[in-house]
Amino acid sequence: MKGIAKRHILKIVDTQKTGREDFLVVEEPLEIRLAFEKGGIRHQQGISVTMRTPGHDEELALGFLFTEGMIREASQVKNVSFAAVRWKEARENVIVVELADGHEIDFKKLERHFYTTSSCGVCGKASIEAVSVQGHYDLPEYAPVFSIGILHGLPAQLLREQSVFDCTGGLHGAALFDLSGRLVLSREDIGRHNALDKLIGAAFQKGLLPLSDCLILVSGRAGFELVQKSIVAGAPCMAAVGAPSSLAVELAEEAGMTLIGFLRDGQFNVYTCPERVGG
Amino acid sequence: MKGIAKRHILKIVDTQKTGREDFLVVEEPLEIRLAFEKGGIRHQQGISVTMRTPGHDEELALGFLFTEGMIREASQVKNVSFAAVRWKEARENVIVVELADGHEIDFKKLERHFYTTSSCGVCGKASIEAVSVQGHYDLPEYAPVFSIGILHGLPAQLLREQSVFDCTGGLHGAALFDLSGRLVLSREDIGRHNALDKLIGAAFQKGLLPLSDCLILVSGRAGFELVQKSIVAGAPCMAAVGAPSSLAVELAEEAGMTLIGFLRDGQFNVYTCPERVGG
Repeated sequence: MKGIAKRHILKIVDTQKTGREDFLVVEEPLEIRLAFEKGGIRHQQGISVTMRTPGHDEELALGFLFTEGMIREASQVKNVSFAAVRWKEARENVIVVELADGHEIDFKKLERHFYTTSSCGVCGKASIEAVSVQGHYDLPEYAPVFSIGILHGLPAQLLREQSVFDCTGGLHGAALFDLSGRLVLSREDIGRHNALDKLIGAAFQKGLLPLSDCLILVSGRAGFELVQKSIVAGAPCMAAVGAPSSLAVELAEEAGMTLIGFLRDGQFNVYTCPERVGG
Repeated sequence: MKGIAKRHILKIVDTQKTGREDFLVVEEPLEIRLAFEKGGIRHQQGISVTMRTPGHDEELALGFLFTEGMIREASQVKNVSFAAVRWKEARENVIVVELADGHEIDFKKLERHFYTTSSCGVCGKASIEAVSVQGHYDLPEYAPVFSIGILHGLPAQLLREQSVFDCTGGLHGAALFDLSGRLVLSREDIGRHNALDKLIGAAFQKGLLPLSDCLILVSGRAGFELVQKSIVAGAPCMAAVGAPSSLAVELAEEAGMTLIGFLRDGQFNVYTCPERVGG
């Protein structure tokens, strides 16, 4: 299976050593490039390199571009495919997103990812303002309401889904649930940001955005960037099995998103907008 | 305490709602800048922005620069201090590392972090070669040997150390142990790379490098970049409480480092160089 590698290891239980076959999650770099026409000339520009688990790379590229505010709808993308590169080993590690004619990118928006020289970019407040500029959708006030009983049941569903794919123990999961607690989509990756980009990229391709009546669940912690991506995708509620960060909570509050943390073992904490947690 | 924020939350246990005070791990951006003289002119160049937990920022900057091959010894650094920036909120989010006169930086080496246009940079093999160029120290062959009994005891020590600082559940830990299993140093951060950079930066400042007779333990998973940093610091053995990735294992093998994963509950897996795991 793609994304999984076999390896001979030495397993030690107590003081007992035994050799055996084991599975590893694959980690490989992916470069995302944009192809576009400007002034009658074809351009190709690389915009990001991320360490990811191969698979769903098209969704990863689209989800990344969407959550960064580079693309807003499917009609702005003409084609997505792996680049023809010389090195055999890099064959499936460079993906090119060809933009539709007439769709121009604001490359300045991308800058904060790679490097920012202005000190204004390096305080939490400025980061939060930058996200609100990128937000495409307004989150619905006070609605929808997610029931406590349904919330308690979500981590087990994600775990069940992950256990199918993840024999390595090395993958982060991100899943989309509707109001009835039904799992709509789930994606996995060695990088937590990539798992969420793949999920949002899949939703983008399927025409499911904005995620107005949905909840996004992530298997790990909820940092600033994960909350940012969920807000840009229009999700009114995000839950994490792990802890949120201070800046993630501030951003969720600013955007009016419900942020839930430590969702496990029949308990959870609501950090912002508790109006959406009911009965 | 620095790095921890208080927040009023709604706690839900089963169906019972109660309001209470809770603690969050602080997440804030940190920009690392280099200051140097070239051709008689003072330059300042930003090289990285990372989301980190405030505290030990000097070590974070030095550890990052060291593991990227930008600095090799303490004498190459004249001073480290926060920049005087206008925005109050960004006051402690920009750190400047002033290089000693005559120490020149190869800025090309930094490029792969921010962006790489060459497709040769995006296959695992090329990434591994790039690391071997940066490696400062040769790892000692077959030595030292870490005893199984001591290895089993390390996670509990890291956990004990973490429980002192981490009331938020949101921090990654990295710790340095000697051959007798004594904890030499430990550092924490919301970002796993930052925790390790802080640890290596502290070792750099204390003159402990190379870490020839030490083991580095990380609280989470062992990805490519964490293994890379440990190798550059000269550690012959790295252990993770979580899973390693395929590329991390390949890199450890290439460098001759012992890589241990899933070190918990009296068990662990040895992925590479089992000669260093004894009796």
